[in-house]
Amino acid sequence: MASDLRTEELKTPVDVAEYLFRRLHEVGVRSIHGLPGDYNLVALDYIPKVGLNWVGNCNELNAGYAADGYARVKGISAIVTTFGVGELSAVNAIAGAYSEFVPIVHIVGYPSTVAQKDGMLLHHTLGNGDFNVFSRMSRQISCAVSLLNDPHEAAVLIDNAIRECYLKSRPVYISLPSDMVQKKIEGERLKTPLDLSYAPNDPEKEDYVVDVVLKYLHAARNPIILVDACAIRHRALQEVHELVEKSGIPTFVAPMGKGAVDETLPNYGGVYAGDGSNKGVRERVESADLVISIGAIKSDFNTAGFTYRISQLNTIDFHSYGIKVRYSEYPGVRMNGVLKKVCEKMGKLNIEHGPKPSNEIPEVELLSPEPTITQAWFWPRLGQWLQENDIVITETGTSNFGIWETRFPAKVNAISQVLWGSIGYATGSCQGAALAAKELGIKRTILFTGDGSFQLTAQEVSTMIRNRLNPIIFVICNDGYTIERFIHGWKDSYNDIQPWEYKALPAVFGAPKDKLLTYRVSSKKEVEELFMDREFSSGDTDKLRFVELVIPWDDAPSALKYTAEAAAKRNAE
Amino acid sequence: MASDLRTEELKTPVDVAEYLFRRLHEVGVRSIHGLPGDYNLVALDYIPKVGLNWVGNCNELNAGYAADGYARVKGISAIVTTFGVGELSAVNAIAGAYSEFVPIVHIVGYPSTVAQKDGMLLHHTLGNGDFNVFSRMSRQISCAVSLLNDPHEAAVLIDNAIRECYLKSRPVYISLPSDMVQKKIEGERLKTPLDLSYAPNDPEKEDYVVDVVLKYLHAARNPIILVDACAIRHRALQEVHELVEKSGIPTFVAPMGKGAVDETLPNYGGVYAGDGSNKGVRERVESADLVISIGAIKSDFNTAGFTYRISQLNTIDFHSYGIKVRYSEYPGVRMNGVLKKVCEKMGKLNIEHGPKPSNEIPEVELLSPEPTITQAWFWPRLGQWLQENDIVITETGTSNFGIWETRFPAKVNAISQVLWGSIGYATGSCQGAALAAKELGIKRTILFTGDGSFQLTAQEVSTMIRNRLNPIIFVICNDGYTIERFIHGWKDSYNDIQPWEYKALPAVFGAPKDKLLTYRVSSKKEVEELFMDREFSSGDTDKLRFVELVIPWDDAPSALKYTAEAAAKRNAE
Ligand SMILES: Cc1ncc(C[n+]2csc(CCOP(=O)(O)OP(=O)(O)O)c2C)c(N)n1
Ligand SMILES: Cc1ncc(C[n+]2csc(CCOP(=O)(O)OP(=O)(O)O)c2C)c(N)n1
Ligand SMILES: [Mg+2]
Ligand SMILES: [Mg+2]
Repeated sequence: MASDLRTEELKTPVDVAEYLFRRLHEVGVRSIHGLPGDYNLVALDYIPKVGLNWVGNCNELNAGYAADGYARVKGISAIVTTFGVGELSAVNAIAGAYSEFVPIVHIVGYPSTVAQKDGMLLHHTLGNGDFNVFSRMSRQISCAVSLLNDPHEAAVLIDNAIRECYLKSRPVYISLPSDMVQKKIEGERLKTPLDLSYAPNDPEKEDYVVDVVLKYLHAARNPIILVDACAIRHRALQEVHELVEKSGIPTFVAPMGKGAVDETLPNYGGVYAGDGSNKGVRERVESADLVISIGAIKSDFNTAGFTYRISQLNTIDFHSYGIKVRYSEYPGVRMNGVLKKVCEKMGKLNIEHGPKPSNEIPEVELLSPEPTITQAWFWPRLGQWLQENDIVITETGTSNFGIWETRFPAKVNAISQVLWGSIGYATGSCQGAALAAKELGIKRTILFTGDGSFQLTAQEVSTMIRNRLNPIIFVICNDGYTIERFIHGWKDSYNDIQPWEYKALPAVFGAPKDKLLTYRVSSKKEVEELFMDREFSSGDTDKLRFVELVIPWDDAPSALKYTAEAAAKRNAE
Repeated sequence: MASDLRTEELKTPVDVAEYLFRRLHEVGVRSIHGLPGDYNLVALDYIPKVGLNWVGNCNELNAGYAADGYARVKGISAIVTTFGVGELSAVNAIAGAYSEFVPIVHIVGYPSTVAQKDGMLLHHTLGNGDFNVFSRMSRQISCAVSLLNDPHEAAVLIDNAIRECYLKSRPVYISLPSDMVQKKIEGERLKTPLDLSYAPNDPEKEDYVVDVVLKYLHAARNPIILVDACAIRHRALQEVHELVEKSGIPTFVAPMGKGAVDETLPNYGGVYAGDGSNKGVRERVESADLVISIGAIKSDFNTAGFTYRISQLNTIDFHSYGIKVRYSEYPGVRMNGVLKKVCEKMGKLNIEHGPKPSNEIPEVELLSPEPTITQAWFWPRLGQWLQENDIVITETGTSNFGIWETRFPAKVNAISQVLWGSIGYATGSCQGAALAAKELGIKRTILFTGDGSFQLTAQEVSTMIRNRLNPIIFVICNDGYTIERFIHGWKDSYNDIQPWEYKALPAVFGAPKDKLLTYRVSSKKEVEELFMDREFSSGDTDKLRFVELVIPWDDAPSALKYTAEAAAKRNAE
């Protein structure tokens, strides 16, 4: 089973591990996240060999989050863990990527095929000789599982896994037994790049759907476009941009779709999330006679507790797996092709003007003499400080809801986990995103996390320092789990946290003095000064910036209040 | 399904969550580990109500490790997490407890049964309406899964789960949907405590086995006793102690059995692990004409790479699930009863004297003029500083092997994860163990972890501070993953870590100045001074003590070198 391919039969012999890492390089991966372990050590030797960079995270969960952030910037990522202990530590991050359609190749260093076959009582096992138990678990949260137990099928399994990962935009699991790493396989295959293009729609079917869509579009007087997460995750942004710009139709985003649309366009209207939306937005969306919904994920937190008031009779749903026009379903027709053709054939529409959105701070906040930073004031104010191409990461907690109120410049990549909602995600993700940004020449990666959330994964700031990354980190200091307080346990001690000296951490983690700037801001004035500070705001410094942003414990964005109330009710019913 | 029991039919109505927590209190749990999440918040309200203490960990993996440590001191423990994100974060810790036979009750706050039935698109789901996917994963690493979806069966399911957990000494999984928490069930059941006694052996069968054992025991001239992990984990220590003391047979422990035997007894001989043992120990054990092996787990790291040289023809194996005499198997006979009767009926034995072990430092180390701390010097030296009843936690890495050389005072509880071997475990475990120690009036909890391992779970020092625990923490500072270097990648950067100011962390995590002592020791002389320091060594201070213990990067206990070499070979074969 584990026999070598006869080397003399191979035209271009290449080791299994080298094949794997070269394929990853080919699809755009430049850095591999993860931790070493004795079952993967030899494989790690191949990483520099093929021109890849080893990140070296502090733990595997954080590495998984980082790989998620990296993939959201670069399109795909990879993480290496070790059997049992390593892979299971990463499982929550991988499940999150599965839930939110993020393509991560998870490579797990396995005991040798011989040891597996003999059922040896090895470290990192359950002691029961079962070497398939962890892959069984991961199967639940992977769109493909490739167990590389035989060099004859290794290349095919690797290629399949990476292709599935990319096309389904979900994690895959690859086991790499320690004795397979150096087995020789045919390298000729590498001359043919993987085909990562989506299978085209059946043209007749596609044309049919396009006509149906156009019929409703031309009949509409008052249509709107609503863009959501799957437009981003299933790579339909270019088609969306064309449609939005060419049609001029008033366009809104769901919270998970934030960043998908150029928010400086005159027809951009803001964030729609049912009762969690601003009044103007809600009225505009809910009075539309046609909703062109692209890539929707209508989860509780993405809809402020299922408070959409949009009739399916007025809706066209675009998805990666099909189109739905009112109640007529067209499964197997991918949105990308349809959107493109709709755009081409659209012709003249008869539509009303969109709302005039702004990124100005609500007047009542602006006029408030209160020096304290409020959530209502901060998030709109942030929009004026953001720059084109910024990567903005927010965390489950107040920041994930506050960001709804932030009007972005063009081309902002907004990263968050509104559906999966695992706290600690944002800090790990920031490491991966900042590294991807560096590789791509993107200048600023900006993290907002809560003090509670930050405590889960704080050590990944160390990995940022180790990899010489220079994100701008805001920890919202509000003495605990504010979002939870709004759901249940307003003053209960289980929503309190241990107070930390947050901004002292980067230095403890070894940040050189001249590569670090730290701040604590507790008033609007201090925020203004901070935003004015050239060095703080710079995209060209190599300094990591770390800000304690002090906001009262009992303050939350209004969208969060709605959503929390709905969640509390649902939990009790 | 989710209907309330008719309250008027209940004699002593009690809420499901209260029932659960009162049962946990009954079996000895006093503190609940975990993190809040909206699906478990209402349940948390019951914790103080029934006289339990909420720990409030920094993240769920650490909470799982802590629950493991707590259970190893108090006999059983409980952790509460939230659906999906929380529970999956803890999965590696739970798998470790499964592997190493540690009883943890894992309670997961679930979405309401109504939301589950409706397949709602809720946060913390995979977005596919499948609410069983995570319990399916946990089933692989739990000895019972109780899904509390119906008040009618809640009490029975809770009782079963806790009993299974205790008796099988492995984790169980309990789902607690948010709408079940306050459902009324019959409280009368609580008047009858859970029966946690092991089913007695069939007396005839037991007597038969006892006679067989005695036959070989009486025939032996040169027997030894070898005690391993399962003697501890399956609660046979009292029987073992009696046998060891009464028989006077030379007694050894496997690494995972360290602490199971009173090491001050004249017939205690040291740690046996095949080629990883000291020469005297190895010769003594391997020349025995009878090995009474109690609770063995012959895993690679517990046997220095499968280097036992003991013939099954000279062996009697005692297990929780059966006895094996040479090749004769007696399944279903639990060791506890057999050991007790063997002791009672033993009569006079005809045995040689044991070796005379010592806790003195090997002479060559003692005479070395080198001021540097070496692993060979430190671990024997440590034995002289330890005190009766100490809890000593070591980590996968140099400390797990070094501790083989440490002769313990009586009643030391040694905690480590030699089979599962997840790094970061020790620091989390220390939090739980120190809390359990406090509850039991045990004075000192002492942690040894590596610098690499510490980085995975460092924030649990914050939880120690939050809970006013005062362990003595040693971080072995040797610039990275030394154990891995000995396996593969001697100077490769993947075995390096980011340098931290470790001892600055407790203050950053909010330790009050007057409750904290920190040290850095880099020479033998400094270690001697430290061990002499009364305040540092005290069991009666409320100060947390944190030591950076500097040891050269390329130094390792000799047992580790053997084991690492064997692992490297096996991985390559
Ligand atoms: C891994 C994980 N554990 C627990 C939760 C439950 N949870 C959701 S939000 C939250 C509190 C977040 O607090 P913080 O980061 O301080 O945010 P803020 O105060 O800004 O709301 C918790 C505990 C979760 N979502 N994920
Ligand atoms: C969760 C997890 N990830 C990775 C590993 C692989 N691993 C085993 S030991 C080790 C290094 C430990 O280094 P350190 O704690 O510094 O110990 P020392 O230097 O004393 O050997 C690693 C990475 C593991 N056992 N568990
Ligand atoms: Mg907070
Ligand atoms: Mg180390």
